[in-house]
This record gives sequence, structure tokens and C-alpha cells, in this order.
Amino acid sequence: MTAIEMQFVIFRTDYKHKMNNFSIAIHGGAGTLVKGMMTPELEVQYKDALKKALDIGSDILRNGGSAIDAVEQAVISLEDSHLFNAGKGSVFTSKGKHEMDASIMDGKSLEAGAVSLVAGIKNPVSLAREVMDNSDHVFLAGEGAMEFAKFRAVEMRDEAFFYDEFRFQQWQEIKDSDKFQLDHSVKKDSKFGTVGAVACDEQGNLAAATSTGGMTNKRFGRIGDSPVIGSGTYANNQTCAVSCTGSGEFFIRGVAAYDVSCLMEYKGLSLEEAANEVVFNRLKTINGDGGLIACDRFGNITMPFNTEGMYRASLDINGKETISIYS
Amino acid sequence: MTAIEMQFVIFRTDYKHKMNNFSIAIHGGAGTLVKGMMTPELEVQYKDALKKALDIGSDILRNGGSAIDAVEQAVISLEDSHLFNAGKGSVFTSKGKHEMDASIMDGKSLEAGAVSLVAGIKNPVSLAREVMDNSDHVFLAGEGAMEFAKFRAVEMRDEAFFYDEFRFQQWQEIKDSDKFQLDHSVKKDSKFGTVGAVACDEQGNLAAATSTGGMTNKRFGRIGDSPVIGSGTYANNQTCAVSCTGSGEFFIRGVAAYDVSCLMEYKGLSLEEAANEVVFNRLKTINGDGGLIACDRFGNITMPFNTEGMYRASLDINGKETISIYS
Repeated sequence: MTAIEMQFVIFRTDYKHKMNNFSIAIHGGAGTLVKGMMTPELEVQYKDALKKALDIGSDILRNGGSAIDAVEQAVISLEDSHLFNAGKGSVFTSKGKHEMDASIMDGKSLEAGAVSLVAGIKNPVSLAREVMDNSDHVFLAGEGAMEFAKFRAVEMRDEAFFYDEFRFQQWQEIKDSDKFQLDHSVKKDSKFGTVGAVACDEQGNLAAATSTGGMTNKRFGRIGDSPVIGSGTYANNQTCAVSCTGSGEFFIRGVAAYDVSCLMEYKGLSLEEAANEVVFNRLKTINGDGGLIACDRFGNITMPFNTEGMYRASLDINGKETISIYS
Repeated sequence: MTAIEMQFVIFRTDYKHKMNNFSIAIHGGAGTLVKGMMTPELEVQYKDALKKALDIGSDILRNGGSAIDAVEQAVISLEDSHLFNAGKGSVFTSKGKHEMDASIMDGKSLEAGAVSLVAGIKNPVSLAREVMDNSDHVFLAGEGAMEFAKFRAVEMRDEAFFYDEFRFQQWQEIKDSDKFQLDHSVKKDSKFGTVGAVACDEQGNLAAATSTGGMTNKRFGRIGDSPVIGSGTYANNQTCAVSCTGSGEFFIRGVAAYDVSCLMEYKGLSLEEAANEVVFNRLKTINGDGGLIACDRFGNITMPFNTEGMYRASLDINGKETISIYS
């Protein structure tokens, strides 16, 4: 038995005296409403939606379910909320449509699935899981991915399902401009709208999933980091599970999610040290704004962000629950 | 001055006594024709095409041009050949079309551009460069990417330009089956058909580019590793430039290109050690077949592959030219 395996056994024995033998974290994007825009009522709505998704994932893990099921179901819950920019709450593209991306990765097998530029899919994260479980591929996009969705009889919805008055108004404000994000707007939440989840189950298996509705008024079939394995999502039992949210282009150039894993595996950093290094140093060097959630197989959780806030929630192995928006 | 900078200065002074103050490597895919299928005439054709692309890139570097220009132009030359599965020589999809992917990354700025599922573009690598240089995005796909190509007046060709009798026959053989690759066929070159280039210019700047026509008979808008920054392509002046070729799904799951960089930066491995670790160990663990070309800022070049062959050519700082197909 190696030192690392020994450490693992000690941990696995130890935490049985604690409240949980699993951990989970979720996020609803690092592009929160600026504090002045947030009302107490809205804050309650956001926190309720985060709590609901966290509970769904936690219940699966508490009942001995797998990390991969927990992250998928937690993300489905966030996709089904109109509050977050993913699934039902997706923003409008420049053509008034909804184009969604998602990915999922299993830390045990290093298997992964991702979809990009899909429309009408109720839960893009489940389509990503279908790609992982029932195709020879990892990454499908556009019409081809839609064909695969039909082939796998994935749940579809018409455009009305994805319509949201707030999202529509966001789009109306900028649709005739060349702007594709609201950098200088007070309604910043369209900028980094993403949802995600990471989990460690009682077997010590890790998983991560991310889903997004992209950027308001986006053009040109832009793909952000959310469906890119290594950038927006990564999971490996040997190191960590990571889901990112932020200015996607910078997370792609920084290969952000895998960078956390490499800093742990090759440089020996802890989960927290590695995640902080990526969010506060490496991404900042290339002007990358955003954050990430990550967990390791010892049940540690970290949720750093370099923006004003990040919708986030977690339940750690000590049974400590966190639901927060600002720092 | 740090130790690394000192080493760099020493190197830069030192190599002036050598034949070149730059280095370049190119590949035409790790899915070569099996030895029995290769004729002396065909081998000459492949080597001539590799030599031509290498010369184009080398000439740019010899005249003080940038690594990013050298890799773009070398890849254009490979895309313009009907021999390699990229650009003009792209294979047929299940619908009898050509869907191409490409990416490019500048190691100095860490800027990158990528396109996926584009059709009718004469040189997808140049469209990727347009994305890098003239958009706010990194990764564009499908119809949106085509719209951007028109907006940037990128050179287009009609379907006849991409027609090749050999590729057409490859497709005919399997088009009514569910097969999307020729695992057990003697015509293996359709499997890992990719082209790529890496270079170090006289300023010590690194760049990498990769381009592919995908897999014969592919369905569902499959995206391989070629356009995925971190998986198929990566460049960083601090470490290396990498272009991969192989079973794309495994290179995505392994985040192969960035893995080489991380092994150098975080674990202190040399370019060759890092590339070998990825190709012969980490990718093999998840059954990933293929290879990669890589160079560092000291002008070192390595071109490992775990398949029977890899079309490849290089010119190193000592002026040594290599043009090879098998191991």
C-alpha cells in the first residue's frame, strides 16, 4: 500500500465518525447580480434554488449513490430553474434562439461526454451523459448532436419552455448592437452564466459537470469553456473534480480545470492551494475573470472566485452546509 | 535574471554558432498506411509533401518570421495536399460531406483560435487564426463559424475542390455501416488523419497548429481533439508547443497537449521526457493511440508515437532535417 493509499484508508476510516461520508459543491455562475441589483426577495429565490439542487445531489450520495449521478441530478435541478443561465434559464443568442453547452466527467474511468450548440434539449447535462455512456465519442456539437439526442430519445422542449421575460429583456437591450456580453451593465449575470457540480461519493469516486446557456446576444457559434474537457470540467479520482465558471475564452486558454489537477498531481499542491493558484494567479495573469468549485477524494471542498460573487453551495464531510452569493 | 533566463541567454548565444536559430516540426497524422500498403512511389509522394511543408515553414523562420506564421503556413501546405486528412484531403462524413476542424495557439501571448465542423473553407487553420486575431472568441463552430468566415472573407472552395477518389472509395466501403473508423482495415490512414506543426522562432517564441478532416463516415457532429486547446494543440513560451494526432477522444480525456506542458512546468521534466510520458504511459493507460510533435524554446524537438508510424518531418537548431513515416 502506497503512502497515498494509506492516507486514503485513514481518511475513509476517520470520516465515518463524522456526519457524512461524501461531499458535494454546486455553483450557479460567477457572474452574479451586482450587490445593488440584488433584492432580499431575489436573494431568497437564488438561495432556495441552490439549496434544492444541493439537497438533490446530497440525497443521492447519502443513499450510497454515485458521484456521477449526484452531479448530473444537481445540475439538472439548476438547469430546470429559470434563475440560472443554463437549460430552461438560458440566455438569447443574437438570433433570438437558445444555444446550450454542457459536459460531464467521471473521475474513476476518466470517461467524459460533452455537447455544444444544442437547442430544445431540456437538460443538456443529460445529453452530455448520454454521449459519455452511449456513444464512442466525447464531444458532439450542433445539428449532429441534436440528431444523437433524437436517436437516444433525450427529453426535448419547445421554444416556449426556454422563454423568460428577464432574459428576453436582457437580449432586447443589446440585440441591435455588436455587444455579446454586458460588461458595463448592472445586469452582469448574463456574463458568466453557468451552472456546475462536483462530488465525492462514499466510494471515493469523483465527478464533475458543467452546463451553460452561453452569452446573451452571442454570435458565430461561439463555444466557451463549459463543454471543453480540461477547461470547464475535469475529474480524476487521483486528484480532484472541477467545474469552472467565468470568461470562457480565458478558461480555455488557461486549460483551467485540468490545471488544478496538474498542480496537485505534479507539484504536490493541496486542493485549495491549486484552485487558488489557478483562480487568483494564473487566470488573472491573462485577465480571466471567474471562479471554480472543486473537491478531492478526501472530501475537501474549495470554491474560489475572483469576481464580486459566485452563486454557490456545498455540503462537506463534516456535514457543514454553505449557501452563499457574495464573498 | 533567473536561472532559467540565464540558461536561455546562454542557449541563445550558443546556437548562433549552429546552423539555425529556429526549429520546426510537422506531422501528417499518426494513422499511416500499414507498411504492406505503402508503395515506393506513394512513399516518395508523402515525403515530398512533408518536405514542401517543412521548407515553407523553415523559410519563414530563416527570414526572421514568427513561429505563428511558420506553423500556419506549414499547415496550409499540408491542408492543400490531397494526401493528408485535412483541408483539401479531408475524408467524407456519413452524409458525404467534409467537416473540418483546426486550431492554432501563440505561445507568447497564450492567445488561441479554433474552429470546428466547418465546410468549404480552403484552409481551416487560417480561419482558426482569424478567430484568434480578429474575434473576441477562441472557439467557433458550425454555421456560426461559417458566418464568421464569410464576414472575414476567408477563402472558400466548392465541394469539387475537396473531392478525392481515394477518400470517396474509403467512404463507399463503409458508408452503409455504423462504422465510423477503419479499425481493422488495412487503409488505416483515415483513422488518425490530422496535420500539424510546431515551431520556435529566433525570438524564442513558440507556436502550434493542428488541422483535420475528421473520421471517415463520422456522424453526429463529432468533435475530436484537433480544435480543442489543451488537448490537440497547446503552446506556451515557458514550456513547449505541441500538436497531437491520434484517437481524439482519448487525447481529450487525457488533455494530452497541456499535459506535456504541465509535466515540464510543474514536474521539471525535459521536453522529451514529458512527451514520452504522455504518449507511452498516460495515453496508453486509457488506450489512446497516436502521437505528437513538440518543441521547446531551446529548440529541442521530439516526435513520439505509439502507433506503427507517423508522417513527420523536422528541422532542428543544428540544421538536421528528418523526414520519416515509420519508426
